[in-house]
Amino acid sequence: MVQKSAEELAKKQREISIAEFFEKNRHLLGFDNPRKSLLTTIREAVDNALDACEEARILPEINVELIQLEETRFRVIVEDNGPGIIQKQLARIFGKLLYGSKFHKISQTRGQQGIGISAAVLYAQLTSGKPTTIKSKIASTKKAFYVKLKIDTQTNEPQIVEEGDLEWPEKEHGIRIEMDMDASYMKGRQSVDEYLKQTAIVNPHCTIIYTNPEAQQTIFSRVTDQLPSEAKEIKPHPYGVELGRLIKMLELSNSKTLKEFLTTEFSKVSDQTAKEICENSALLPSTKPEIINREMAETLYKGIQNTKIQSPPTDCLSPIGQELLEKSLKKEINAEFYCAITRPIFVYRGNPFQIEIGVAYGGTQPKDELATVLRYANKVPLLYQQGACALTKAVVTTAWKPYGLLQSQGALPTGPLTVLLHIASVWVPFTSESKEALAHYPEIIKEIKLALQDVGRKLQSYVHKKQKIQGQIERASMFENFIPEVADALSRLTGANKNDLIDQLEEMVQKETLTSKMEQMESLKGEIDEGEELPRRRNESEEEDM
Amino acid sequence: MVQKSAEELAKKQREISIAEFFEKNRHLLGFDNPRKSLLTTIREAVDNALDACEEARILPEINVELIQLEETRFRVIVEDNGPGIIQKQLARIFGKLLYGSKFHKISQTRGQQGIGISAAVLYAQLTSGKPTTIKSKIASTKKAFYVKLKIDTQTNEPQIVEEGDLEWPEKEHGIRIEMDMDASYMKGRQSVDEYLKQTAIVNPHCTIIYTNPEAQQTIFSRVTDQLPSEAKEIKPHPYGVELGRLIKMLELSNSKTLKEFLTTEFSKVSDQTAKEICENSALLPSTKPEIINREMAETLYKGIQNTKIQSPPTDCLSPIGQELLEKSLKKEINAEFYCAITRPIFVYRGNPFQIEIGVAYGGTQPKDELATVLRYANKVPLLYQQGACALTKAVVTTAWKPYGLLQSQGALPTGPLTVLLHIASVWVPFTSESKEALAHYPEIIKEIKLALQDVGRKLQSYVHKKQKIQGQIERASMFENFIPEVADALSRLTGANKNDLIDQLEEMVQKETLTSKMEQMESLKGEIDEGEELPRRRNESEEEDM
Repeated sequence: MVQKSAEELAKKQREISIAEFFEKNRHLLGFDNPRKSLLTTIREAVDNALDACEEARILPEINVELIQLEETRFRVIVEDNGPGIIQKQLARIFGKLLYGSKFHKISQTRGQQGIGISAAVLYAQLTSGKPTTIKSKIASTKKAFYVKLKIDTQTNEPQIVEEGDLEWPEKEHGIRIEMDMDASYMKGRQSVDEYLKQTAIVNPHCTIIYTNPEAQQTIFSRVTDQLPSEAKEIKPHPYGVELGRLIKMLELSNSKTLKEFLTTEFSKVSDQTAKEICENSALLPSTKPEIINREMAETLYKGIQNTKIQSPPTDCLSPIGQELLEKSLKKEINAEFYCAITRPIFVYRGNPFQIEIGVAYGGTQPKDELATVLRYANKVPLLYQQGACALTKAVVTTAWKPYGLLQSQGALPTGPLTVLLHIASVWVPFTSESKEALAHYPEIIKEIKLALQDVGRKLQSYVHKKQKIQGQIERASMFENFIPEVADALSRLTGANKNDLIDQLEEMVQKETLTSKMEQMESLKGEIDEGEELPRRRNESEEEDM
Repeated sequence: MVQKSAEELAKKQREISIAEFFEKNRHLLGFDNPRKSLLTTIREAVDNALDACEEARILPEINVELIQLEETRFRVIVEDNGPGIIQKQLARIFGKLLYGSKFHKISQTRGQQGIGISAAVLYAQLTSGKPTTIKSKIASTKKAFYVKLKIDTQTNEPQIVEEGDLEWPEKEHGIRIEMDMDASYMKGRQSVDEYLKQTAIVNPHCTIIYTNPEAQQTIFSRVTDQLPSEAKEIKPHPYGVELGRLIKMLELSNSKTLKEFLTTEFSKVSDQTAKEICENSALLPSTKPEIINREMAETLYKGIQNTKIQSPPTDCLSPIGQELLEKSLKKEINAEFYCAITRPIFVYRGNPFQIEIGVAYGGTQPKDELATVLRYANKVPLLYQQGACALTKAVVTTAWKPYGLLQSQGALPTGPLTVLLHIASVWVPFTSESKEALAHYPEIIKEIKLALQDVGRKLQSYVHKKQKIQGQIERASMFENFIPEVADALSRLTGANKNDLIDQLEEMVQKETLTSKMEQMESLKGEIDEGEELPRRRNESEEEDM
């Protein structure tokens, strides 16, 4: 009955290299089409440059250049002034997927996976057949060097085509990447131009010099010489470690006792906390980690959940900050009312998260269109998959009508509004390796909505006052229309000159209503800026929209 | 100025194993939360069982059993009657991510990546700390054997806890998997129950015996003894091979000449086609593949694009079929009108695709709710991420008003409607490794919309006739209301008995209108079933909604 035997079927079983896997499924990495591929490549290179500069505490200066070689073939050049990469590591960092320094580190970085830039190298060789050239210099006293490489997709190992020393006298230190690939250059909402602009907005310490394929140069100059606070690396928090991981940590531990294990390998576990965990797990603090079996590990795991442990340290996060957020919005968007908030840190699965929201309302923004949403994760703008993103979902499922905006069921609010959202974390759960949208974790969406409600209430106060004043202005201008009739009646009653009366009445209206109301509107923003705290509406508790 | 040197930073560079990567990002594989994890585990096991049975040409019988051990801990058991797996391969198939037989094969299979079932093993060990037990028997004449294993996440290699021979006399051949994991069991739209039900719908040759955690057993019996046609493996089509891949193929080829290379390593390249490709590339057919450098490969690549080559063979696809689709809908949905179509094969990036659509309209389906969408890819039901899926996008961006349904901008149509969509292909571009939603390739969405327009026109004809007849029925029943008055008038005019007249009039109305119209409605479906081809509306050309 069995027509093909297990033996026969077994012959086809094979190991699949991660490079082969992503070559076949390159849309998972953001290389779906030529336009997006160009953006993804530049994003990966620029994000890496910013991460490296910040880690080495260097003010970043990044050169991005696009050269059109043929109709669909482009050369991408990205050069930074970062610390450079030592020769031994250069090939693997660019020529091997899942290789990097950020994956095992618990801290807020733009890159996370060790996939992105090698994926760009893979895409370049797939579409142009050409190797990528990388130059590196690590100090002015040292010689620069270069490598031309491809990725051997069957083994996921770098395949060095050429390498050697290099004269690069004008460079103190840094990296320069050059690759040829099939691409398409367009402007607009999902363009390289937009990505660089949005990157500059939230990274004011960075200078980006961008030359587009039409040889037009744009310089985004740094507006501060101060590097953002360094995001510190932390140890795992006990609440964030799952049972299987805990067993693995116990196996690999060099600690002599359970107490030592708990205090040295986790963050926020003091001697006292360790003692409490042991008590709650019915295990002795002196137990040797290597004798802890699965059952004991499971009681330990439950003991941890039942012990009150301080939240993880917060210096592993580097938010944009309320002030900068508002300043950036003011620079980019012509609105009347601006407001930004940075929420306190919250913890999910042991990972600290921080949400920041900025809004810009009114001004020249279109009144009849859906609000504009700008999404950022760890200071990287997200330009694709807006609909699939938890940040968008939070905006859509927040009730905006109480804040004075129109909104259809399941849609973004309609009105002259821009909402900027930023999530900072040591672990950003993206929906795919292309890092375009956040996965829909209910706990995270809830926190974003709380932040939106915070700014929403401030917005509400402005919008309602504005609507009230506008009503008064309208009534005043209505009165203006009747001035001739009123003047006529008054003149007949009092015998005064009709034209004089008209002038007087008009002046009165101007002074009493229009001008002062206009001023009132101007001053509205100031008032709210200064932290006027409005009482919460009773029917709008924090849980309500969940 | 550089505070951390390149040397210092280099120390942190490390290889990341694919198992570590997915342990940290398990939501990418469909293990976001306990409920979804249970479904994903069962889906991976059942899909593998179905693939193995079909490849070995065995009528599948699959046992699925869920046992609740603690509030959040479940044992998952899946047993099949497939060909089994030989002992040497067993550990790697279940204990190593990116290992399998389907990735390098160009054919329509449920599994594709060699990730799914090992990801379930990984999730089980992460949440319960326990190994997975797998039993295998490859023939009644051979001894069965078992392995208990975990995955070493640092190396992505199986870690065998225990293995050995096994008495399993009642089993002829097959696999049995047992694993303990944190999970949550709920019924509803995204449940294990729903997945198994929908799987049974499109796999009528398969018997599934399902025991839920409440010890209730459901048997989905096979309704046919005929296996679906075997999906044949094909060679790559020249149009689907990118430049980098072509260069790699030339490097690895054993062919003596370019002509031999083209005719033996691709599908649909005859001697004549090979000659044409060589001409269009200005290369001699006798050129040795090993001397073809990048520049020559690029001319060859362009030559291929400029040569007319037959579409890939279609026997690599195994669609559900129009008849079965309609039958399945009739079995599951209480409607008035059913219709299904299987579109001709289309080719994208050298890969053959086939779209099938079924609709069920009316009956007891709610009139005021959004239509129900059932999505399938290679006969696997997709239960999550409906909003992010290209199949949904095609439904939403199709104009349903001309077909007699209500529809808000950007929404599913409203009405008593179920739409079943199936995409069959040798390469299904999912948005993530969890295989829940199709990526938004415009070419694929366009083809799905053409299919929807096909069924839409048939639906339109039914809905419009139904609306017309309903109008007549309403007019008739309106007349019925006036029968006493009419009878009274007639009786006065003619002298006939009023009560007799009432009876006669009522009988007339019954006979003439209601009954016959009802019959007309019944027969409507038959008419359309028999392939009544309606002229296309002028303002509804195929390109229109794109």
